[in-house]
Formats: sequence, C-alpha cells, structure tokens
Amino acid sequence: MRESVLLKHIYARSTALGPRVIVGPGDDCAVVGTGRAGDGPPLLLTVDQLIEHRHYLGPLRAGEGSGGGTSVDLVARKAVARSVSDIAAMAGVPSWALATAALPPGFPGELANALFDRMAHWAKHFGCPLVGGDIASSTEGAPAVLTVTIGGEPHARRGPVLRSGAEAGDEVWMTGRLGGSLPSGRHLTFEPRVAEARWLADTLGASLHAMIDLSDGLGRDACRVAEASGARLELDARLFPLHEPASPTADRDGEDYELLWTMAPAPLPAACPATGTPMTRIGRVVAGSGCVIVDAAGRAWDATELGWDH
Amino acid sequence: MRESVLLKHIYARSTALGPRVIVGPGDDCAVVGTGRAGDGPPLLLTVDQLIEHRHYLGPLRAGEGSGGGTSVDLVARKAVARSVSDIAAMAGVPSWALATAALPPGFPGELANALFDRMAHWAKHFGCPLVGGDIASSTEGAPAVLTVTIGGEPHARRGPVLRSGAEAGDEVWMTGRLGGSLPSGRHLTFEPRVAEARWLADTLGASLHAMIDLSDGLGRDACRVAEASGARLELDARLFPLHEPASPTADRDGEDYELLWTMAPAPLPAACPATGTPMTRIGRVVAGSGCVIVDAAGRAWDATELGWDH
Repeated sequence: MRESVLLKHIYARSTALGPRVIVGPGDDCAVVGTGRAGDGPPLLLTVDQLIEHRHYLGPLRAGEGSGGGTSVDLVARKAVARSVSDIAAMAGVPSWALATAALPPGFPGELANALFDRMAHWAKHFGCPLVGGDIASSTEGAPAVLTVTIGGEPHARRGPVLRSGAEAGDEVWMTGRLGGSLPSGRHLTFEPRVAEARWLADTLGASLHAMIDLSDGLGRDACRVAEASGARLELDARLFPLHEPASPTADRDGEDYELLWTMAPAPLPAACPATGTPMTRIGRVVAGSGCVIVDAAGRAWDATELGWDH
Repeated sequence: MRESVLLKHIYARSTALGPRVIVGPGDDCAVVGTGRAGDGPPLLLTVDQLIEHRHYLGPLRAGEGSGGGTSVDLVARKAVARSVSDIAAMAGVPSWALATAALPPGFPGELANALFDRMAHWAKHFGCPLVGGDIASSTEGAPAVLTVTIGGEPHARRGPVLRSGAEAGDEVWMTGRLGGSLPSGRHLTFEPRVAEARWLADTLGASLHAMIDLSDGLGRDACRVAEASGARLELDARLFPLHEPASPTADRDGEDYELLWTMAPAPLPAACPATGTPMTRIGRVVAGSGCVIVDAAGRAWDATELGWDH
C-alpha cells in the first residue's frame, strides 16, 4: 500500500462538497465556512495520526530514563505538534484540539492518563486547548494509535496559503535546516513554524504564493507544490541549509517540519526577525511540471520519488 | 483499564481552557467559538473511534456476501453515524467531517480506497461532507482503527443541549426502542436522531433541559445525565420501549444510538411528527444523585454499573 497513492484517491473526491467547503482534501488543511449558512469566519482543519513503532520507537513509557521506547511527554508533544505544523503551513494560528487514543488492553491506566495530560499540556502550549477526545481499547499486541485534530484561524489579511499558488518566476525558500530528524530525535522536539508563517504572511501579503510543511522529505513535498500549482520547482542542493552532522539524504529524510514557500522575488533577512529561525532561498519556480534537485556537480535529479510515505 | 475512569480523568482537566471554549470535554460534543477572537458562531465538535474486532466483527471485506467480517460500506457508515449521533445529542446539525484510518501493512489498497469512498458517501449523506483525512500504515496484525471528527452547528434558538441541564421535576423521555443492537446488526445501520433532536429543540425550546445519545447502555448513560446535572433519574422498566425480540438486558446492551432527554412536563405525541420515530416517557428526575431503574416487581436497581465501556 502506497499511502501517497491512497491519499490521491481521497483528494480526487473533493469536488461537489457544497458551498461551506472552501478548500477540500489535498492541502495541509481543509478550509470550511462556519455558522449555519457557512458564511461565518473560515476555519482551518487538519487531522494527523501518530502510530507506535511507525512514528516513534515503542513502547510508550512513563519517564525519560534508560532503556527502549519513548516517553509519553515526547509522544504527546509530537502528536500535537504535527497537526500544529499543518496549521502553520497555511499561515494560520491554531485554536482548539481534539485527541483520540486506541490503546491495547492492559495498557496501564496511569500511562493513559499521563498521555492525555501531556497532550492537553502541549495543546495549550501551542495555543489550541484540548476540548475533547476519545479513548478506546484496541486488541492485544496492537500499537498505540493517536490522532490529533486541530482547528485554526487563517491569517487575517492574507487568508489561507495553499500549495497551489506557486507561479513561474517565484523564488523557493525554506525555514530552518534539513536532514537527520529521526536519528537526532528532532522529530520529537521540533518547533512548529507558526510564528515564522505569520511573519511571512504579515510581511509578504499576497506575494506569499504557496506554502507547505516538510513532513515527508523536501523532494516529495516540493513535488506536491509543483503538482498542485501546475509549475516546476528547480531546487539547488548547494543552497540547502543542513543540520550538522550533514545527512547525505537530507532531501529525503523527512520529518523536518520546516516550511517551504514560494514568493515573488524579494529580499528577505537571513533569519526571521520574530524568532531568529534561518530563512534560506533554495530554488526557483519555472514553467513546466515536476521537481528537480540540482546537485553539486550540476546534475539534475528527479525528486518525484524522494521521501517516504508515513 | 476502565475507559469510563480514564474519560473522567480527561474531563477533570476542562478548566481554564480559555475564552474560546464554551463547553470543554465531558459532553457529547465540545462547543467552541469561531473566528480570530473566538466570538464568531459557536461550533460543535466531536470525535469517535471505530476499532476492528471491538466495534464490528473483523475482517473488513469488500462486499456483503457470506462468510465472516463486515463490509466496508457498513463499517464506513457506522464510523460516520456514531459521530453524527453525538451532534444530534446536542440538538445540532452536522456540517463537515474529517476521517483517519490506521491500517495494517498489506491491507489491500482497493479496500482502503473503498473505505474512504464509503466514508465520504455517508458523510455527505448525513450532511457533513468529508473535507480531509489521513491514512497511515500501522503494524502487522493490528486492527483497523478509524476515527471520524465532525463539526456542527447548534440549534439556532435553543443553543447546544448539554447533559447537565436536568432538573428535579423533569420527565425523562427517549426516542425509538432499546436493546439487541449488536445481535440484530442495528449497531451498523441505526439512524442518528438529528431530525428528532431538531424537532424537540424547535418544539420545546428552553423546556428541553438535557440530552444524551444512548451509546453505552441506557443505565450508564442515564447515570451520566444524573451526575452532570446533580440530580437523580428514576426510570421505570415497565415503560421501556423494546425492540422485538425483547432483550432481557435492554437497559445495558448499549449501541442503541437513541436520544434520551429530560424536559419540563408537557404532552408530546407518541411519535416524532418529523420522522415517525417513537417517543416514550420512561421516567422522571428527582432531587438526589445517581440513577435507579424500577423493574416490573417494583424493585429499584442501581444503574451505575449497567452498560459497558467501549
């Protein structure tokens, strides 16, 4: 099962969803109108799953300590932060959260309580209080499956920033650095780029054309912008800002949770004034389709198959 | 692990969630304010899980046919309808849905597509188009875990009907009939009582004091209304409307997805004029706490431990 293929199948159904649906499946968030007539303030919506052994090393355990597994605090943080990052990718601000947990029978009650306590803590920390949820027993030996749904508000003036707005002539930029998120543990402690996205929307306004968060690898996520926009992204690997020690597969490691955006050419500071996070130009948008990454030797690689399903 | 105990732990944390949160965890839905300041139209929010082998007989299979398992169509319908029933329990109308699936590796891609197609179908059918979702691989042998998040609009005049509004002197009523939902297959085909709830809110207005949907068994759910309201529910088993063949444990079978409400005494027709669904008075609210069910012999049974965690 290729998840990317399945997701495309979901997206293909986004027609004819009714007047309330401003943006249907296929972007980082859906956008719906609120109120009985659907003409109230627009709402950003996203849901993500966090699956034991898939998105973190199991088992879930109470504290830090030694031995295997991952602490409930870090797992709770990641479950919430992934969905917050989707809101950031639309240049929005998170407002509220819902969480679910499917846990195997015999899962310690104290650990389940701690898990929801920490999800509530991190949801509040990121500005989106946990207003509801559900907990249920799954089956013996099943992995813990968490979901976090987050609603948020689009930027007041810019509105939601979609994947589909990239235009030939745009520059391609990204926040932060790439690579090695899993071995370094950064996939558990990353900071969703809400403040950076807001600064960009405040500063660039309508010149901020398209945005996505880098969850499945730079190459694959850049391809998604290209496909949604009907344009071609050309990225220059020599410009990629890398974490130290540099990962030789930084463009496909995934789980960076940085923002990638395209914009009408304009000077930007080397770091976001609001947060100090680096901002780096890494390529450009041209007419065409797909995404290529040009390496140090000047060779162009098709980025379509870089990255991973998760 | 007792889920009811864990859920109480979640609910206990619902203080200090901020001005946007009108109703926090602990009712059928949360209620939040929309818009950047949180003062836009209020939004009902609920999320529920549907777990293979727990909430339906596995495995998921493509069609009806013979043999074991449950069809993707019925599973998709139940996943959506359970959350729609939560919206109905607040006297609201569903507006949009998000869905997730955690499926084991090797789960057939066609079946996964069919699952999302049918969830989209049923979501649209119930008035809440599927605007987004997530699909991910879990681990070998893990049960399929589905979640459906639904947002909805409260009743225009009555507002959200909570569990906590029951008052001494109220009558206790319910829609439809009780019992045998699992063996009869009704747990897969029930009709969420959205239209009945709307008729009640239209007709009774502020006299409609409290409401809940019967998912975990009449006894247990009635206790929840009693506890939230700080009152005592006295139910008369001789009045219970039962499905044929009558289940001897109809008050604790669960999965009825009927509405139970309390209201200032008033005459009501025997069936909802909007739908023809039976409406039956089954008891009253008095001062005190807890819930008792009086049987045919006039003995009172404590209902606290009737029903099931799921």
